[in-house]
Parts: sequence; structure tokens; C-alpha cells
Amino acid sequence: MPRLRLALGQTNPVVGDLVGNSTQILAAAHRASAQGADLLAVGEMAISGYPIEDLASRPSFLAECHNAVYKLAKELQDAGLGDLAVIVGHPDGPFEPRLTGTSNAPTAIAQNCASVLQHGHVAARYAKHHLPNYSVFDEYRIFIPGDELLVLRIKGADVALIVCEDLWRDGGPVARVLEVDAGLLVVINASPFERDKNEVRLPLVTRRAIETNTTVAYVNIIGGQDDLVFDGDSVVVDGAGTILARAPQFVEHLLVVDVEVSAATEAKLPDSATRVTLADGPGQQPALATDLAILPEDREQVWNALVLGLRDYVHKNGFRSVILGLSGGIDSAVCAAIAADALGADRVWGVSMPSRYSSDHSRSDADELAENIGLHYSTEAIADLVLPIETQLELTGTAAENVQARIRGIILMGLSNLEGHLVLTTGNKTELSVGYSTIYGDSVGGFAPIKDVPKMLVWELARWRNDSATSRGEVPPIPANSIEKPPSAELRPDQTDQDSLPPYEILDAILEAYITKALGREDVINLGFDTDTVDFVTKLVDHSEWKRRQGAIGPKISGMAFGRDRRLPITYRPTR
Amino acid sequence: MPRLRLALGQTNPVVGDLVGNSTQILAAAHRASAQGADLLAVGEMAISGYPIEDLASRPSFLAECHNAVYKLAKELQDAGLGDLAVIVGHPDGPFEPRLTGTSNAPTAIAQNCASVLQHGHVAARYAKHHLPNYSVFDEYRIFIPGDELLVLRIKGADVALIVCEDLWRDGGPVARVLEVDAGLLVVINASPFERDKNEVRLPLVTRRAIETNTTVAYVNIIGGQDDLVFDGDSVVVDGAGTILARAPQFVEHLLVVDVEVSAATEAKLPDSATRVTLADGPGQQPALATDLAILPEDREQVWNALVLGLRDYVHKNGFRSVILGLSGGIDSAVCAAIAADALGADRVWGVSMPSRYSSDHSRSDADELAENIGLHYSTEAIADLVLPIETQLELTGTAAENVQARIRGIILMGLSNLEGHLVLTTGNKTELSVGYSTIYGDSVGGFAPIKDVPKMLVWELARWRNDSATSRGEVPPIPANSIEKPPSAELRPDQTDQDSLPPYEILDAILEAYITKALGREDVINLGFDTDTVDFVTKLVDHSEWKRRQGAIGPKISGMAFGRDRRLPITYRPTR
Repeated sequence: MPRLRLALGQTNPVVGDLVGNSTQILAAAHRASAQGADLLAVGEMAISGYPIEDLASRPSFLAECHNAVYKLAKELQDAGLGDLAVIVGHPDGPFEPRLTGTSNAPTAIAQNCASVLQHGHVAARYAKHHLPNYSVFDEYRIFIPGDELLVLRIKGADVALIVCEDLWRDGGPVARVLEVDAGLLVVINASPFERDKNEVRLPLVTRRAIETNTTVAYVNIIGGQDDLVFDGDSVVVDGAGTILARAPQFVEHLLVVDVEVSAATEAKLPDSATRVTLADGPGQQPALATDLAILPEDREQVWNALVLGLRDYVHKNGFRSVILGLSGGIDSAVCAAIAADALGADRVWGVSMPSRYSSDHSRSDADELAENIGLHYSTEAIADLVLPIETQLELTGTAAENVQARIRGIILMGLSNLEGHLVLTTGNKTELSVGYSTIYGDSVGGFAPIKDVPKMLVWELARWRNDSATSRGEVPPIPANSIEKPPSAELRPDQTDQDSLPPYEILDAILEAYITKALGREDVINLGFDTDTVDFVTKLVDHSEWKRRQGAIGPKISGMAFGRDRRLPITYRPTR
Repeated sequence: MPRLRLALGQTNPVVGDLVGNSTQILAAAHRASAQGADLLAVGEMAISGYPIEDLASRPSFLAECHNAVYKLAKELQDAGLGDLAVIVGHPDGPFEPRLTGTSNAPTAIAQNCASVLQHGHVAARYAKHHLPNYSVFDEYRIFIPGDELLVLRIKGADVALIVCEDLWRDGGPVARVLEVDAGLLVVINASPFERDKNEVRLPLVTRRAIETNTTVAYVNIIGGQDDLVFDGDSVVVDGAGTILARAPQFVEHLLVVDVEVSAATEAKLPDSATRVTLADGPGQQPALATDLAILPEDREQVWNALVLGLRDYVHKNGFRSVILGLSGGIDSAVCAAIAADALGADRVWGVSMPSRYSSDHSRSDADELAENIGLHYSTEAIADLVLPIETQLELTGTAAENVQARIRGIILMGLSNLEGHLVLTTGNKTELSVGYSTIYGDSVGGFAPIKDVPKMLVWELARWRNDSATSRGEVPPIPANSIEKPPSAELRPDQTDQDSLPPYEILDAILEAYITKALGREDVINLGFDTDTVDFVTKLVDHSEWKRRQGAIGPKISGMAFGRDRRLPITYRPTR
């Protein structure tokens, strides 16, 4: 049986940065070659970053990507890496636009491609067949599907190549791997993290490997790109379902593994399939030890996703530091801990902004947090800034309460404008769901680290993070009191969240049913919740869509995040 | 030749309000029946409103829509209107979900349907074949395409029925109208207004009528729904290309017209087509005079779109009034005039918020505007509110300038919280494009009336609105000085927009090329613009995506509005 040394490169591309992204691939190729690899595969759209959204409809952008692929082929050759076959993902085009109707708007003129580079040339190209257009994906909007299978003959083996969603569809190109008698199936991916997704992804890869009796090599990009975090977790599974190699999550990594694959046959190819023969790579190498990473538990995965999502947003957008308000509460404490893990405490600025309603513990808990983490810490009392506004406008009730939150927003934005920090907004998913926040107040900021984290999970993460510090002999970052005390916005005396909202256990469960599962009112009630509570909560959710539309982006960790995952009208008059 | 009396009902649905929307259809049916119509058609999704976005993936919502159609059929019958055949648009389902891959997210389980109601029953149903998934449309995401043609036999004539995008595609179901030998083609639509779209839409209807030698009846909904404004403009064109009837734009209307159509033949139907025979309506009626509306000029159409977009956002979301800052400048003046035209001056609150940098004319121009329009007017000086913040935070430069804008935002939000007004934000498309605004400052608000109007067009609209007042012997609303003076944000002494930006004629032309036409940097330069200016402007556009994401919605009037029309990443590092 032919033995191939396969390298899977988890790179961290930035959308649009064709030079930087190519440089990462070149570096991976150097390392792969040094380890004697025959074939290197990097992720879907590793050249352009993913998702490129409507950049796919700009002919100039497509031309740049096209040229970047040819340039990379030449650079590989010039660097003495020409023997290595390199599979890279990128958009290509422009092609004849897909027919559309009423609008003058740009439409699909691109394909989602995998190109094979060797000896300075683009030896072969495959275009993705199945274009996901659900959840956060808009690929049918921007891409034209391919319909041609590609088989690479290398070292006496036949390697089939597909892209991401192609693997998921029964009866898609994956079904034709048997037809073309391939010995190895390479799948390049840009698959964003979701809690529990690896409970679906690995079984799928395994099932496809067994179904086709073929080794499957799955490579995914990593990194934060706006509201998505790609987790890597590249894996190689053989035709018996055994995991041969697995890369760690959320880090750049080169996974190198030897695979024994069945020899190529001279079976005639079916229609709509092309076979391209590549030059052989280096001769046989001594057998290699490889990585078999083990996934950490759920809370650690989520934490890592939030950390990487924030770090990459900061770095990829040219910031050096972040600033956030520290209220002494659990949300801002968790956000500060995430920020310190992402950037180092030295790049985190925390501001305590007490009002006349702030409790003593809100100040002392914030002090303790700042001390534990070692971040930059200052205090700006707001009473003297709020009073003139309340007085001049004669504000009372909620109108007055909101001024406190909005003055805090002005302070954070003022310091950001002065010192260049990215402002973090610390609202959690539960708050966003029911609109329990002051727009242009505590919602102020460019990035929302825990936007997709429900309140109950915020507490879990805080406990997990503290335990993990303790187990390493470090100071737990989050003050115990911030975790234990009843949550409060502290906009009036003795206020608690539960004055306005149901208990968080019940609230989060209703939101899970109404938002994540998209159940209707009746179906939520049928789960056993109180009718009035369901009506109260669902009405809040519907009425706060306008606030969510104006909210900052933040990392998606669930199967249904706010943003492009859940597209609903603001103007909506449900029949109740 | 059979003669049919055809009624096209331009209704104004609210998304989700199945009862209210059905009531509008029932009212149209009463009027159509009173005028002896055989057939009434209302728009695409007239039952549910359009676009329903991901509501289409909620089984409970689909069940409600399904039931609403049957309920309407019964109500028509109970009202003695059972003889009238009524064509209504609505989503239907749930059907077997379309296959998807990686996500647990809801996917397409619905179809975009036209149902034919008669005698208390749903006599026939058609499902849209072509699902637009470009521009603002996400139909491939949420709908499963239909593949069956429907022919209605009524009064000896055969009537084919299709939905919106089906008309636009060559080789789609419209091509089969000849195949099935129909005498009339009814198209129900939810087609949003864009400048110049009727220069495409009417020629298309005419071309299809001539190609198929069939009378085409095109009916569109009206009304504002979030960022879309549906303009009606329903029209009937015969097989020779003659316009037989045309409804006015932007108003609810029942267009009734007699059409002579070729008699049904006994030709065998092709595969994938169904013929349903309906009961005949009333006997022959005396011939009828009909409407032949004439479209107003471009600026009046745009003005009407902005007025209806704002009015419907206010009413459909339960507001009674609006509030906005009046700076004396052209943008706020035009927004105030739109608001007064939409709601009446009595529902418009204007606030002048002078700072220490405000010129005398900024106050006097705002005074004159308020006087001309007759809106509620008050003044809140900001100096005493800004100073404590500047002093405490030691802010200077842009950081200090932004505080002025943000205090104004707090004032408007405070008065809104107190009095219940919707806050309007008055930024124009040019400002939004280059980020020339203070986020959480002048961007504060729930609706942005001129969000899709470039600065040059703002001036044109102001002049047109004043001229139109003059021609009716009314007071022109917008002070001449607001139109003529150089635009300024007045955040520092003697500031003008052109300190920071190229002249607006040039800026708007570059933005048209880069944004609307989606040209790349090189292609924009090749149009003859200065390289440095193009680099300066395109960089500003790319860097302000994060601000636009947090901006209020506003009515789309162009082929490329911000929002779902133009989907681009925030994190984007272009190769320059």
C-alpha cells in the first residue's frame, strides 16, 4: 500500500490580507517539507480569510485572490518547496454572473475553490458543490456551485478533494469517492466553533471514513473573524474509524501524519470527474509520531473560544488594548478575566464608575477584581456628571436611570477616543435577549465578549475559571462575592435584576426554547412554563430586536447567536 | 373572447399581524365584489407581511399563516363574497426540511405560496419557483422552491399564476405560459422601491406580455417594513404591450379593470402543471373606466418613499410621535420636513441643542425651520452639561468634540424615555459611508429617515420640497440658508465638513463607484479620480463598517443600501 506523509496546516487568516495569509501558508509549507511531507492541505479560504461575504461579488477582489494563488505557487517553488503538493482554499472568479431578477445589486460571480499547487504551477482546481445558506452562512448568495469531481494521483494513490459542506451532504460528491476508487479523501474547511459541534463533526468524519472505507483528512482554519471563531480541531480518521491524528483546538498548528492508503486503480473515471497526476514528493521517510490531541471539557472550550475571539478582534483590527467598566458584578468580572487571558493584564484598562446608588460591595468587588488580575484601574465617579442632566431635563424614573448608564458610556468612549483602547461592552446573552440594558449606555462598545453567553453559563464559566486558577496554584481572578451576590444594575436603591425579570434559571430555559430552538409561544408553554411568564419574556424578546440590531458584535458559541444566525424583523406584530 | 373583471388590491401588511392583514384583504374583497369583479389578487405574502425572514423557519408561525388563509376563505364566504375568486400570498408549511450540514439552526421548511380562495375553500395553491437570494433578499435561505405550474380556468379563460421573481427569470415558469396556452398571467409581488426600478419593472412586464402574447396583471404590496418601502405601482399590460391600467404609487388602492382574454383551449397540459376550474363570478357587467396613474418625477418618488417609510415604521411599531435634534443644518431640516409630511407637524418634536461653538445662524435657521413647519420646538443648551465631563476626564481634541454630540444623544434619549417619542437620527448616506459622525452621539435613534440619501441628493430633495410648497402657495419648509450655507458639524470654532472631507460632488461620485457599483480601488481611480482622494475615501469607508453595524435602520431608496443589501466584514485588512 502506498504511504503518504500528510500535513494539515491550521492557519489563522485575516479577511482580505492576502499577503499575510499566504505568508502563513508558506511558513507551514516550510515546516511540512522539513518533516518530509508529500502533501500539505490548509483550510477553506485560507488565502482570503472566511467569510468574505459580499467581497465575493467584487471582480477586483476576486482578481487579487486569483493572483495571490499563482504568486504563492511561485513563492513555494522559489523557496525550494516545489515538490510539496499544497492544497489551498480561495475564492476564484469572476465567472458569468448567476441570473437574477429585480435588482442591480452584485450577485454570485465566484466559486469557493481548492487549488493544488506544485512546481510553481496551479496543477488542479476543485470548486465546492454544496453551498451552505443557513445559520450564519450566505454561500448561495455569493458563490456559484461546482459540479466536477477532482482526483489527485500522487505516489501511486488517488486522493479525492472536497470542501467543507460537501462532506455533510448525503449523495453529494462524498458519495462519489467510492465511484472514483480514491484511497484518501481530503476535506478543507472553515467551520466555526459552536458548543457541542465537535459531538457532531467527529462522528460525521468517522461515518464518512467508514462508509467509503477511505481515510478522511479534515483540516479547519482557526481564529476569530468578527462574530465567528474557527476552532481548528483538524483530524485524520482511517477507513476503520480509527483516529490517526488530531490537532489541538484554537491554535495555529501543523499536524503531520503518515497514512497508508489503497493503491490507485485504472478504473475508468465517471463523467464530471477529472484526474490530475502530481509529481511524487520526497522518498519514503522513517515512520513518524503524531499528535493525538484530547478535547478539553465544554467550559474550557467555550472560554478558549471567547479568549481567541476577543484577541483576534483586537489584533486584526489594529487595537493594542481594551477598556471596560467594572461594576463589581459578574458580567464585567468575567469580561475582564477573558480580556486579561486574551491580551495580558497590561493591555486591559478597567474603570469603576460608581453612582450615588452604588453599593459598597460594588466598589470593593471591583477593587478586588482589579487587584486579582493586575489590570490598569481607575475610578470616575458619575454623580456630578449625571446631576446637571437630570436637573436641566427634569428627568425621573427610567429616563433618569438611563442617564447614569449613558454617562458611563460617554466616559468609556471618551477614554477610548483619548487613549485608543477598544471599548468592551459586557452584556450577556440573557440581557440582550430581553433588552435588559440601556442602549447607548452599558451597550456602548465595539466588541461584546459574552454576547452569546447566557447568564447561567456566565456563572459557570466564572467558577470554572477560578477553579482552574486554583488548580494551577494561581490567584482566582473573579471575586467570590461577584459570583455569589444577587445581580443588580444598581440604577436605583436596592434594585435587583429579579425585580424586573423571572429567576435566571427559568428565564434562560425559556430563552433556550424560544430563541435557540425557535419554538412558538404555545410550544414553549407546553414545555411546562407559566403562561404569563412566557408571554412576558417572549414579548420582551420581540420588542428588543431594535436594540440588538444596534449592538456590538461578539463571538458566537451557540447554535443560535444573535446577528446573522437569527434574522428577524424589528417591525413585527405577532398574533398573541 | 371572454371578458374578466380583474381587481388588484394594493394592501399594506404588517409582518406577523395575520388578523389585521386579512382584514385589509377582506375590505378589498368587499370593494372588488361591489364593482362586479370576477377575480381579486393581492400581493405576495399579503397575509403575513414581507419579508418574514427567519419566522419562515418557525413551525408555529407557519401553522398560524396556514390557518389564517383558511379562516379568510371562510370569512369571505360568510360575508357573501364566496363567488369572488381571491388570490392571496402567504407562506405555507412546515414541509420536510431542506438538507443542511453543520448546524442545528433552523432551515428552509416553508414555501412562498399563492392560494386561490373561493366559496369558503382553498381551491388551488401555487408555490414560487425562483427564490431571490441577492440584494436584500434571503429567500433561498428560508423557502423551498416549488416546481408545479398552476392554471385557473374561470369564465372560459385560462389564467396562469406566478409569484414575483418567477416573472424575471428567462426560461422560468413564465416561459410555460405559452405552453399551457393561458389567456392571462397574474403575478403577485412584494417588490421594494428603488430609484429607477420602475424603469426596469414596467419594461419587463411589457416584454413578458408581448413575448407570451398574454395580458399580464402585476400586483404589488405597499408600505414600509423596517428598511424596505413597497411602492405598489400595480399595472396591467396587454399582449400588444399597451398599459390597460396602473395604480398610484405608495398608497393603498384597488385597481379594477376589464380584460378581454383569449378563450381557454382543450390543449393537453404538460407535466408538472395543474388546472383547477373555478366557479364563474357575477355575470357580464357594463364596461368600466379604470385608473391610469402617471408616475411622478424621481425626487417626488424618493420623497414619498421616505415619508411612507417613516410613517409606517412609527405606526407599525406603536409610536405616536418623533423627536429629533435641529442643528440649523440641511440634514435635520430635511428630516423634520419628512417627519411633518409623514405624521403631521403636531407629532414632531424638534430640539435645538446649541453649544459654545454653535453659530448664530445655526440657532436662527433652526428657529425658522420650526416656525415654517409648525412643529413642537424647544432649546436645551449643552455647555453646562459638557463642561463637567470634559473637565473631570481632561478630554481634548476629538475626544472632547464627541462629548458634545453624545450629550445631545443623551438629551434626545432622555426626552424620548420621558415622553415616548421615537428618536430620529439625521445622518445621510455620505456621512455613514465615511463614518463622519459620532457614534452614540448624533447616530442615536431608532430610525434614520435619510440613511440611504447621499448628501448631494439631500440638497436636491430640499430644493424640490420647497419648490413644491411654493407651487401650491404654501410656505417652503426648509430655510434657504440651511440649503445654501457650507455644511458644518460645529464641534469646534469655524469648522466645516470640507476641513475633513473632499467636496461633496467628488465624494458622492467616488462613493457611488466604490459602494453602489462595488468597484475596486483601481477601477475607481481609472474613472479619473485622484489616487490619494480615492485611497482616503475608501479607507474611511472600510474603517467605519463597525459604526454602520450599530446604526439605526432607515428606508432603502437605492440599489445598494447599507444593511442587508451590502454585507461586508468589519475585520477586513485589504491589500492596498
